[in-house]
Amino acid sequence: MSLFPDDCVGLVTPQRQAFSEPLLLSCGRSLAPYELVYETYGTLNASASNAVLICHALSGHHHAAGYHHEDERKPGWWDACIGPGKAIDTNRFFVVSLNNLGGCHGSTGPSSIDPSTGKAYGASFPVVTVEDWVHSQARLADLLGIQQWASVVGGSLGGMQALQWAISYPERLRHCVAIATAPKLSAQNIAFNEVARQAIVTDPDFHNGDYAAFGVIPKRGLTLARMVGHITYLSDDAMGKKFGRDLRSEQLNYDLTSVEFEVESYLRYQGQEFSGRFDANTYLLMTKALDYFDPAAAHQDDLARTLAGVQADVMLMSFTTDWRFSPARSRELVDALLAAGKQVSYLEIDAPQGHDAFLLPIPRYIEAFSGYMNRIEVDA
Amino acid sequence: MSLFPDDCVGLVTPQRQAFSEPLLLSCGRSLAPYELVYETYGTLNASASNAVLICHALSGHHHAAGYHHEDERKPGWWDACIGPGKAIDTNRFFVVSLNNLGGCHGSTGPSSIDPSTGKAYGASFPVVTVEDWVHSQARLADLLGIQQWASVVGGSLGGMQALQWAISYPERLRHCVAIATAPKLSAQNIAFNEVARQAIVTDPDFHNGDYAAFGVIPKRGLTLARMVGHITYLSDDAMGKKFGRDLRSEQLNYDLTSVEFEVESYLRYQGQEFSGRFDANTYLLMTKALDYFDPAAAHQDDLARTLAGVQADVMLMSFTTDWRFSPARSRELVDALLAAGKQVSYLEIDAPQGHDAFLLPIPRYIEAFSGYMNRIEVDA
Repeated sequence: MSLFPDDCVGLVTPQRQAFSEPLLLSCGRSLAPYELVYETYGTLNASASNAVLICHALSGHHHAAGYHHEDERKPGWWDACIGPGKAIDTNRFFVVSLNNLGGCHGSTGPSSIDPSTGKAYGASFPVVTVEDWVHSQARLADLLGIQQWASVVGGSLGGMQALQWAISYPERLRHCVAIATAPKLSAQNIAFNEVARQAIVTDPDFHNGDYAAFGVIPKRGLTLARMVGHITYLSDDAMGKKFGRDLRSEQLNYDLTSVEFEVESYLRYQGQEFSGRFDANTYLLMTKALDYFDPAAAHQDDLARTLAGVQADVMLMSFTTDWRFSPARSRELVDALLAAGKQVSYLEIDAPQGHDAFLLPIPRYIEAFSGYMNRIEVDA
Repeated sequence: MSLFPDDCVGLVTPQRQAFSEPLLLSCGRSLAPYELVYETYGTLNASASNAVLICHALSGHHHAAGYHHEDERKPGWWDACIGPGKAIDTNRFFVVSLNNLGGCHGSTGPSSIDPSTGKAYGASFPVVTVEDWVHSQARLADLLGIQQWASVVGGSLGGMQALQWAISYPERLRHCVAIATAPKLSAQNIAFNEVARQAIVTDPDFHNGDYAAFGVIPKRGLTLARMVGHITYLSDDAMGKKFGRDLRSEQLNYDLTSVEFEVESYLRYQGQEFSGRFDANTYLLMTKALDYFDPAAAHQDDLARTLAGVQADVMLMSFTTDWRFSPARSRELVDALLAAGKQVSYLEIDAPQGHDAFLLPIPRYIEAFSGYMNRIEVDA
């Protein structure tokens, strides 16, 4: 009898792919050699027509479903949506999920050793963009024998990658599923990212990004960055329902530094826990990739023209209480896709959880997501 | 010919009032001696029936209108609303504006000298609450010969003080004007305050609040605290209209730490400028006063019962794009006041500026505010 539920992909093993050919990046620099770590779930069919690419968000990675070992506490980050019979049904699809370049979970990134110096890249790691990621993902697809994805799928920053795929490689995906995303960041989005970055770079332990050489990590800054990020992932209502004004102890302490409310304790814990498992330079890099994403900038801010070459059928979903990437941001994409004469489906899901909703098993979301994915035709 | 416009109160001089009788605080400690710095505009009439108290918000102070000297760059923080012929008309009213206890603009606070040690209070300054402020303001009123305010007026944290006056001293004010405020903070409000506090207390220059003894200030932490605060004072739309995705220079730099967007530059500047003029302990204390404000907590969270003793006529105003203290928070107060059978007027003003709108000369706001204040009866 299996240790895992029937709809779980079970034990999975990450794989590595090395690339020696230099990747020319948006910043003008080239990166070589580099490695991408990835996982796959399900089986690639003979015509290689059933492959689905999962693109991760800011703090995500390749481990999207299943377990690395039997006593792993939690499954991959999108296990709610990937598995046998789930929205991304591994009985039908061959799912590829990678850690993006610049990440801190195994793919080449700021904490990797720069072969030219023998030391960690640190601050010298090049800035990478959503476009760069898509190009690196296309190279991985080449090596996996996947000429065309059945679908590229992602939420938040992952949704931006899915959209960029449809723009950069129109013939290489039949479907594009972009969830809780936006065609570019707003000034407020950038502002929150900038607070996070300033928290990190002004931490005395940041050492201009070369903290590894000093044997420290900018833990305070990364904690703050995560705390402010975390607030933006939840709706005001969700925070209110979860914590309200519940107190940590029966009486107020009335001093300047005690934790009085549960929500303070929760945020501190989340921030501190994150700071122990995530790289600060990667965090900077991911927020910059978000800021830089703006495919319409190269087309005089005309989003419909930007999307003119799209061939994929596009599915967009948003959540009513998401104030990081509100439904209005998805509707901009819907309007532009319709104006460009493209196939687009759009669903606005009533959900109280805010931006984080895209990671959660919300019935209407899962049903719509499943329905859409199940209609994707693949060879037997 | 005057240097100042006709509707400006002109040159003003702060005054000081010392108090020797101990003030018992909500935290259980007593404070004595202490001083309050305040300004007055207009003339107190013979019956002392035309006095208006201005309560300030988080980063405010006593200097609400006019100029301290002829070459002062900007007038007081609420000069848009206080002056001859303005909403709070100094031809009719005698206006009193003070710096609250715990502040950093002249009233006794964490950076004042503790007479028992001869050193700055620093972290040992007691936490003060909205209730404590109202009691200290009542003592000031006693000394000024003001038995009953024509109105107590405030926005944001200042509005909480106005409400607390109506609760604590029902017979001592005829009108209560509370703008862009809330009956208590939400979990999200507390969460943002906690990020600000953690930014300050984890700054190595904070030294547990005794930074004065080390000859430093926690500038990095205070800068971050202000940056995150500033985002919450503006609406997403206002930030979008003001900055959009405008770039600092013509080309993107593509590195991890450069300022790319105007909004980043603006926020950094605002934060740094603030960190040079505001005390970190006072900032902690003000955010705690916000968190602790919850007058209904003593009445089983029954806001109508909390307001049962109110005698003042209450005027509430809110702004549609204020997401810090949204119109819904004012409507909670309206509902409770109506349920308690009180006189309440409420205006929801369509304004794109977010929370900061209460400081700005928005025509419909100023008209309504003026209309309400002008109907307040005062002896000639």
